Amino acid sequence: MALIVQKYGGTSVGDVDRITNVARRVTEARAAGHDVVVVVSAMAGETDRLISLAHKISEQPDERELDVILATGEQVSIGLLSMAIQALGFRARSFTGSQVRIQTDDAHTKARILSIDAERVRQALTDGEVAIVAGFQGVSAEEEITTLGRGGSDLTAVAMAAAVAADVCEIYTDVNGVYTTDPNIVPEARKLDRISYDEMLEMASLGAKVLQTRSVEYAKNYGVPVHVRSSFNYNPGTMVVKEDAAMEKVVVSGIAYNKQEAKITVTRVADRPGIAAALFGRVAEANIVVDMIVQNISQDGFTDISFTVPRADYAKTMEIVKAVAKEMGADKVIGDDKTAKVSIVGVGMRTHSGVAARMFEALGKEKINIMMISTSEIKVSCVIEAKYAELAVRVLHEAFGLGGQPVTEEAK
Amino acid sequence: MALIVQKYGGTSVGDVDRITNVARRVTEARAAGHDVVVVVSAMAGETDRLISLAHKISEQPDERELDVILATGEQVSIGLLSMAIQALGFRARSFTGSQVRIQTDDAHTKARILSIDAERVRQALTDGEVAIVAGFQGVSAEEEITTLGRGGSDLTAVAMAAAVAADVCEIYTDVNGVYTTDPNIVPEARKLDRISYDEMLEMASLGAKVLQTRSVEYAKNYGVPVHVRSSFNYNPGTMVVKEDAAMEKVVVSGIAYNKQEAKITVTRVADRPGIAAALFGRVAEANIVVDMIVQNISQDGFTDISFTVPRADYAKTMEIVKAVAKEMGADKVIGDDKTAKVSIVGVGMRTHSGVAARMFEALGKEKINIMMISTSEIKVSCVIEAKYAELAVRVLHEAFGLGGQPVTEEAK
Repeated sequence: MALIVQKYGGTSVGDVDRITNVARRVTEARAAGHDVVVVVSAMAGETDRLISLAHKISEQPDERELDVILATGEQVSIGLLSMAIQALGFRARSFTGSQVRIQTDDAHTKARILSIDAERVRQALTDGEVAIVAGFQGVSAEEEITTLGRGGSDLTAVAMAAAVAADVCEIYTDVNGVYTTDPNIVPEARKLDRISYDEMLEMASLGAKVLQTRSVEYAKNYGVPVHVRSSFNYNPGTMVVKEDAAMEKVVVSGIAYNKQEAKITVTRVADRPGIAAALFGRVAEANIVVDMIVQNISQDGFTDISFTVPRADYAKTMEIVKAVAKEMGADKVIGDDKTAKVSIVGVGMRTHSGVAARMFEALGKEKINIMMISTSEIKVSCVIEAKYAELAVRVLHEAFGLGGQPVTEEAK
Repeated sequence: MALIVQKYGGTSVGDVDRITNVARRVTEARAAGHDVVVVVSAMAGETDRLISLAHKISEQPDERELDVILATGEQVSIGLLSMAIQALGFRARSFTGSQVRIQTDDAHTKARILSIDAERVRQALTDGEVAIVAGFQGVSAEEEITTLGRGGSDLTAVAMAAAVAADVCEIYTDVNGVYTTDPNIVPEARKLDRISYDEMLEMASLGAKVLQTRSVEYAKNYGVPVHVRSSFNYNPGTMVVKEDAAMEKVVVSGIAYNKQEAKITVTRVADRPGIAAALFGRVAEANIVVDMIVQNISQDGFTDISFTVPRADYAKTMEIVKAVAKEMGADKVIGDDKTAKVSIVGVGMRTHSGVAARMFEALGKEKINIMMISTSEIKVSCVIEAKYAELAVRVLHEAFGLGGQPVTEEAK
């Protein structure tokens, strides 16, 4: 008898039949004697429909009012799922973000969870009810309706699991779990049984879409065991858990990639304090998120600065950077909007040397030129030409032996 | 500079263009220097869509969960209208029933308003904002989402007007106001400039659909002046106000009718205490609302009881009544599902005699047989054959001179 939080996304509750399927799955866990809290998203397409309605009224809809409207999507889902569970002869009760009291700050459309007072949810469980919580939404101290941003339902689920001290937070999705890399590119990609929070964080932020990044951070901070699994079958998925000694033996756990990158280089920038701040400050003002930044060592008091941005922001960024470069007397601005980033991720890197070198060697063998390199404790990322992205992923997947058994210390 | 509550129904906010039109109307009042609170319904069709979704999941959806779902309709409307008003350069802020704190009992799908804490709405007005309140919904003491039943937005508007002590509650609709009778039947029907709460109550409950009955009761209890007017033009509509001396001079203010009635008679019922209670108790258990009841004087210890019910409930009622009649040893049950009720309404009846007689005479002249009669202080209703309904309305409209100038004491 465990306490389980289950999260179902918009596709899983996309129509009446699917809602009934989710209800069946929930009641199976209930019938097995578990206490169940369910977090649901809006029915697939509903959030987009509401956003489009808002944009028909106003090009820049007020974010407070947008949250008022968007929160209705999940409110409909929780009511329908509760009815569906009741129709199967079980007890259920729905809760909006405001009713659960998922307390957030007042940053509308991207609010942060401050605390959860799960008293009503606990009471529902004590009463033998399935508690159904609206994902993606919360309430500010001023009783304003807030939303948590895209993918926010994952965060709701993890935060609820932390609040009620659940044994596990199950994230139901349309894939079987977290893979060593994208199976669409590498057919022999292997489903991981376990992955550490830190690795999952890197994988998530590097482009693997199974879990929202902030939900992984939250799970890590509160030690919530997360089980990413398919809503279409009963196979065990991937457990996202605290790092342990066994994990460190695996040098590289996965290969992530992002094809939607663009690279910009400013050459011969005067190497004096404040220059980088001036450049990236202006880019940030335009709400453009800079990913990787590389600055070469200074020569004759000048340096080159390279960085990457999402490809969608390339044109706008170039415009800004050209203006700033002129002001600061830099030589040239060179742009390339056809770049990709491939990364190897693994906590084993902390204790193993030569991992980066093995990556460069594998890419070099295929004559894939590395334009930029960036490393952290548990990942190495390379910017390459976009057209080589898939090839690079396959080569790295092979080089680190991810297709068969994981490469461990012993196996080397 | 007045404080105005405006209420717009689902048709008025049925699509993006109409919402923008409502926004324009609201901002005109604002630009004229008035403080404005707006109450809106769900976009036309939305409530039905949500009900149908719920019924696809469950034949008898849980009423608590139904309220959770239904309340989203108005929540979308308030957000969109707020955005539309902001797009016109005015300040606006939306409020759900829970945020305003429209406190209700916990009778889901038909909750009663207990109190309104309009502090946040007052603050919004002080801040120079248009306050936009979701109609039809409230919140129970246990923070449950409740709804007020069909037409509940009228009630929200009147209750809000009472709570903020508004100068007037404007109910915007698709007709020009309250008419002496249905203009579809009597083309010369005249729009009333003023009507008393009691007359409006009778007109509303007798089938005139411009205002929900409970909202009129609420307006009467709190002395809220209600202005029923068209959202398609700027003509003054009908003021629903406290009775005054001038009104009493008008003998009959309007003719109401209801064609969806059925009549049932139980003959030779033993005339002893508890018999009526037994009969109507069983009918009430089936959630059938009995309208008119007439019991003839007793002869030889037996009596006949006649009553009317909505035509939709006729078959079910006949079944119940036949069973009860058998148990109590009554003679026969006679049903007629082709009846209508026509009524004359006017506070002037209190001080004028012969009004009923004039009604019977007018109907008699056209050989319209009166099957049942029921009277109150300010109305006389007759049940007649349904096929004569329109004729009866025209005849009575003519007999009481409603087409031209109202018949007053002096004019008689």
